[in-house]
Amino acid sequence: MTEGAKGLAKGKVYIVGAGPGDPELLTVRARRIIEGASVVVHDALVSSAVLSMVREGALIIDAGKRRGKHRMEQDEINDLLVRLASEGKDIVRLKGGDPFVFGRGAEEALHLRRAGIEFEVIPGLSSALAGPSLSLLPLTVRGVSDRILIMSARGAEGAAVSWDCLNVSGQTIVFMMGISSAAEISSGLISRGMRPETPAAIILNASLGTQRVIVTDLLNLGKSCAEAGDDAAGLIVVGETVNYMTRLADGS
Amino acid sequence: MTEGAKGLAKGKVYIVGAGPGDPELLTVRARRIIEGASVVVHDALVSSAVLSMVREGALIIDAGKRRGKHRMEQDEINDLLVRLASEGKDIVRLKGGDPFVFGRGAEEALHLRRAGIEFEVIPGLSSALAGPSLSLLPLTVRGVSDRILIMSARGAEGAAVSWDCLNVSGQTIVFMMGISSAAEISSGLISRGMRPETPAAIILNASLGTQRVIVTDLLNLGKSCAEAGDDAAGLIVVGETVNYMTRLADGS
Repeated sequence: MTEGAKGLAKGKVYIVGAGPGDPELLTVRARRIIEGASVVVHDALVSSAVLSMVREGALIIDAGKRRGKHRMEQDEINDLLVRLASEGKDIVRLKGGDPFVFGRGAEEALHLRRAGIEFEVIPGLSSALAGPSLSLLPLTVRGVSDRILIMSARGAEGAAVSWDCLNVSGQTIVFMMGISSAAEISSGLISRGMRPETPAAIILNASLGTQRVIVTDLLNLGKSCAEAGDDAAGLIVVGETVNYMTRLADGS
Repeated sequence: MTEGAKGLAKGKVYIVGAGPGDPELLTVRARRIIEGASVVVHDALVSSAVLSMVREGALIIDAGKRRGKHRMEQDEINDLLVRLASEGKDIVRLKGGDPFVFGRGAEEALHLRRAGIEFEVIPGLSSALAGPSLSLLPLTVRGVSDRILIMSARGAEGAAVSWDCLNVSGQTIVFMMGISSAAEISSGLISRGMRPETPAAIILNASLGTQRVIVTDLLNLGKSCAEAGDDAAGLIVVGETVNYMTRLADGS
């Protein structure tokens, strides 16, 4: 019995987390899979340094999506993966960070399952946690913060941010993709009772040679982000543990 | 001019995230540092598979701490790191998951900074995110959940869990180190208005050959965990995205 188009055995899709950008921060398994790939379908957030690990002659398809300038709709990507796998090709579906953390990995995986395509998920370092660690910004500190809230600065499909329960004592908030929404985050949190002096950090290009970290406070967050320049994958961290960046730098 | 004890140059401490347990899920950089280490000081949550990457003849010190049976107090660990580095040794301080996510990495780093010891943090996959990904449990799904709350099932120093703002629509909660507190989590969340039918998952030994995932609901969480057996590093995930595990398994 044969399967798939033209009687070929179907290929397998490896849904791989590419981490924050530095190829040294790929997992050992992800690195090996990427280096061995003959077909790679990647997002916009995958760094060029990671893509340079793909061997010469491999087919590399940029399915990158950025806000406001979609290159390929999600449905098209789903169909592309099924079509390539149905041709018998093993595919590396490469996503920035971790595929199941704001990566729509579950949507693609569900589509593959329904099409009878085998897949495997290889986790990657989400910048939500790795970006702060690389910046010496601890998200938890005993007696200061014992909760980490990770959220997108934009709701799904461009919906408004959910402001419920953001002003919680002992909670550090990590906003992903938040640089361009910084002023809204600032005013939204302050209007819901968070102190304007609450420390905040902006992390751009985490793990790359161009990594920048800016320490500010909630009141000045919008201005600081405007000065910092945009990075679609930039992070904003709000909470008292941001003070530990300074302490770790000078020992205070 | 000489530095440190006996005029030796001080060593450097690499504070390295060991990830969830599978050595294939170490970062490339962590793997290289571990393989090259001559002194390793590790936590209880570091897997034996990761420790087997350390070369023969290296000094391996188990500073593992588990609840209720502390092997080495935090102060002792801090002093040990300073003493070893002051002897001129480079040290790998190996911590389960990511060192800055519930890892007390910041406390150790601050102690090192104050002692004038150079250090570097190498992030690792936190089981809080990687465990669900490896279990095909997406923590975010468009239109279902756009917030991830990571918290410890025990407060700092054994303090009570903070129950503020846990029952939030569109939020997935990941409780770390929560298996033995499952009954308390169940009753705590239900008494604060969360539906008893809210889906929940228990993830044990994430990434290892012994990985187990149990799907249950909030009402039965305590019983399910009691039956599952303890794993100090086990995870409990509560939220609607747990339903996607089933959907990803059967395509529904």
